[in-house]
Amino acid sequence: MSSAWLLPEHIADVLPSQARRLEELRRVWLDVARTYGFELVMPPLLEHLESLLSGTGHALDLKTFKLVDQLSGRTLGVRADSTPQVARIDAHLLNRQGVTRLCYCGPVLHTRPASPHASREPMQLGAEIYGHAGLEADLEAAELALDGLQASGFAGDASGLVMDLADVRLVRGMFLGLGLPALLTPEHQAEHDAVVAALSAKDVGTLRQLAGQGCLSTVPGAAAALVGLTRCYGGDEALAQAREVLPAHPLIEQALSDLAWLAGHLRRSRPGVQLGFDLSDLSGYAYYSGTRFAVYGAGHADALVRGGRYDEVGAVFGRRRPAVGFSLDLKVLGDVLAGRDDAQVRAAIRAPWSDDTTLRQAVRDLRGQGYTVVCMLPGHEHDVQEFDCDRELALVDGRWSVRSL
Amino acid sequence: MSSAWLLPEHIADVLPSQARRLEELRRVWLDVARTYGFELVMPPLLEHLESLLSGTGHALDLKTFKLVDQLSGRTLGVRADSTPQVARIDAHLLNRQGVTRLCYCGPVLHTRPASPHASREPMQLGAEIYGHAGLEADLEAAELALDGLQASGFAGDASGLVMDLADVRLVRGMFLGLGLPALLTPEHQAEHDAVVAALSAKDVGTLRQLAGQGCLSTVPGAAAALVGLTRCYGGDEALAQAREVLPAHPLIEQALSDLAWLAGHLRRSRPGVQLGFDLSDLSGYAYYSGTRFAVYGAGHADALVRGGRYDEVGAVFGRRRPAVGFSLDLKVLGDVLAGRDDAQVRAAIRAPWSDDTTLRQAVRDLRGQGYTVVCMLPGHEHDVQEFDCDRELALVDGRWSVRSL
Repeated sequence: MSSAWLLPEHIADVLPSQARRLEELRRVWLDVARTYGFELVMPPLLEHLESLLSGTGHALDLKTFKLVDQLSGRTLGVRADSTPQVARIDAHLLNRQGVTRLCYCGPVLHTRPASPHASREPMQLGAEIYGHAGLEADLEAAELALDGLQASGFAGDASGLVMDLADVRLVRGMFLGLGLPALLTPEHQAEHDAVVAALSAKDVGTLRQLAGQGCLSTVPGAAAALVGLTRCYGGDEALAQAREVLPAHPLIEQALSDLAWLAGHLRRSRPGVQLGFDLSDLSGYAYYSGTRFAVYGAGHADALVRGGRYDEVGAVFGRRRPAVGFSLDLKVLGDVLAGRDDAQVRAAIRAPWSDDTTLRQAVRDLRGQGYTVVCMLPGHEHDVQEFDCDRELALVDGRWSVRSL
Repeated sequence: MSSAWLLPEHIADVLPSQARRLEELRRVWLDVARTYGFELVMPPLLEHLESLLSGTGHALDLKTFKLVDQLSGRTLGVRADSTPQVARIDAHLLNRQGVTRLCYCGPVLHTRPASPHASREPMQLGAEIYGHAGLEADLEAAELALDGLQASGFAGDASGLVMDLADVRLVRGMFLGLGLPALLTPEHQAEHDAVVAALSAKDVGTLRQLAGQGCLSTVPGAAAALVGLTRCYGGDEALAQAREVLPAHPLIEQALSDLAWLAGHLRRSRPGVQLGFDLSDLSGYAYYSGTRFAVYGAGHADALVRGGRYDEVGAVFGRRRPAVGFSLDLKVLGDVLAGRDDAQVRAAIRAPWSDDTTLRQAVRDLRGQGYTVVCMLPGHEHDVQEFDCDRELALVDGRWSVRSL
């Protein structure tokens, strides 16, 4: 029993100062999303496993906790990612013909931590636009992500925010342009995934090795294209470089032109953000289908927000709708911000405890105005309080008044 | 695949209008709790099973989903009730000597629904005061519960709120006064639980039957005391009646005097609430140890909020601290309120989509002021929107202005 308070690895309590910050971030993001017209939904923690994993790939399966439903005997999964759930809501429950903007915020669980210091219980917040295939929706999603970060504290022209763009179609176009459509079929999933992982890690050695085996070894230009793509990052020169190193294919042309459009609009609308490209960054879930973005902030090596287009994600629910959006872990964001500003302890008013109805009414009135009034319970008048009390309610000339301590 | 969108029984998506109401209720309750000096904590969804269930009794065990931790091989539980988690936080992580006020809000999961129409994923919100054994803390918890309900929409003198008080010590005192201390030992847990269930259901037939068997059959006055207690409800006469039907015991005297004190103070401070007693209502978790309260509102048969004193709950974590608090399911509260007021759809401003930088700046400015501005993505100008747009942003005399539709 002595260790009953020990938590599982990569699982932690969120204590008051961090919890206050998380709650504030939740409100800030949901309020910013609401000003764009995004509607809040709350998908369940539990679903039938096949529903939760439909069309999402192997990586999410491995991340998902499974358990048995006593009511039905079927296997349930605890959500590890809410994006497919929200696509299901759009496809089935709302079933609207036009544009639908949805956002969500809640915990997800991972069987294993995503990185050595990651929590297995991220607080996932996300926003999605369904029903519009045009780049205007990609732009709106990216702008909302940046506005959310700005409202969280990454403010002004010196926000320190860096947004990198990429596009999943570059790799698909490369395989097609190389004459290797087989690499996009389920039979070659393993080879495909190995290439994508090595591209995302910019692991040139592994890429050269992969180019010498399997399908890729049958095409002379494979190694040059793969290695070349890892060098396509930075400013606009990255787009020109991609045109040089990648084979010719309409998908690639389309992706590069879309990226140039998106970058141009984002540079004009959010000049405080350093905008660039990282064209081999394909990390994340398997459901992305078009433009991608990742936003970085000073003080954290990994992306704070990842998003992009994933038009196929609702197809398994019977409705192929264009979709674009992003998600982030509010716990990570809270930790990054904790290093920036000291969590301000909210100053409170101390009040004595007494039966006196005028005192009790004074306490109620102050609380009704939004003040925090902590009543000192009898015998605890000298307790140290987490709420730093800088004022007290005291009887002055027969009236209860607030005065400084 | 065609049924990939079907959810498990008693599990549901929370769609926009309900989600908006839930989010507002979350904020209202957490804000009211903050004005009392309650600090927010967020315990994890997952814990080692023995930690999650320490000292909580068999009922919670049956409610708890179990799964295996791939990292440790140990059995984990998904929380079915956050109260023991928050007690663990008070006992171990904060480890303060004085009074600690904590609140929390998040989903819990139940293996089986608590009632035929209940969700298996309640949104549990609760508040707890640790470290004060006096009735002033019981009073503060009850007042906070009533203030939260009032801020949620049960307002004014005609709030329709009914608060019933009870005390677990009446039953313990009854068994001791009857000379049956054995009924409080683990060996007679089943008999004890059967009596408590029948008392809570006011099931006089079963009580008479139980009084004729087991321990109880050895005591002549058992049936009269048990059946008598089920009739102790209503106004102050319930307290007088309890003194008549229950055997004499100091625990009973103390409980009745505490209930009278609490009722007196609550009647004075919250005159709009109909305050009474229901002395055989002992339903809920096994960890209660003293006064109990349940708050009912028009439109819902079961209690909206249940709370009370549970001084023993932190003991298994190595720290025996007095504790009193309450919890509620925000989803139930949201459903009850949905029947009262139509969810008001927030009026929004419609804006065209264009590259025009003055338009885009006008949109940003309005959003920055908190307005919802929905941009009509190209080709979707005639979509029906969930956000009813009652105004539009239009170019009037060369300036972007908001005008009525």
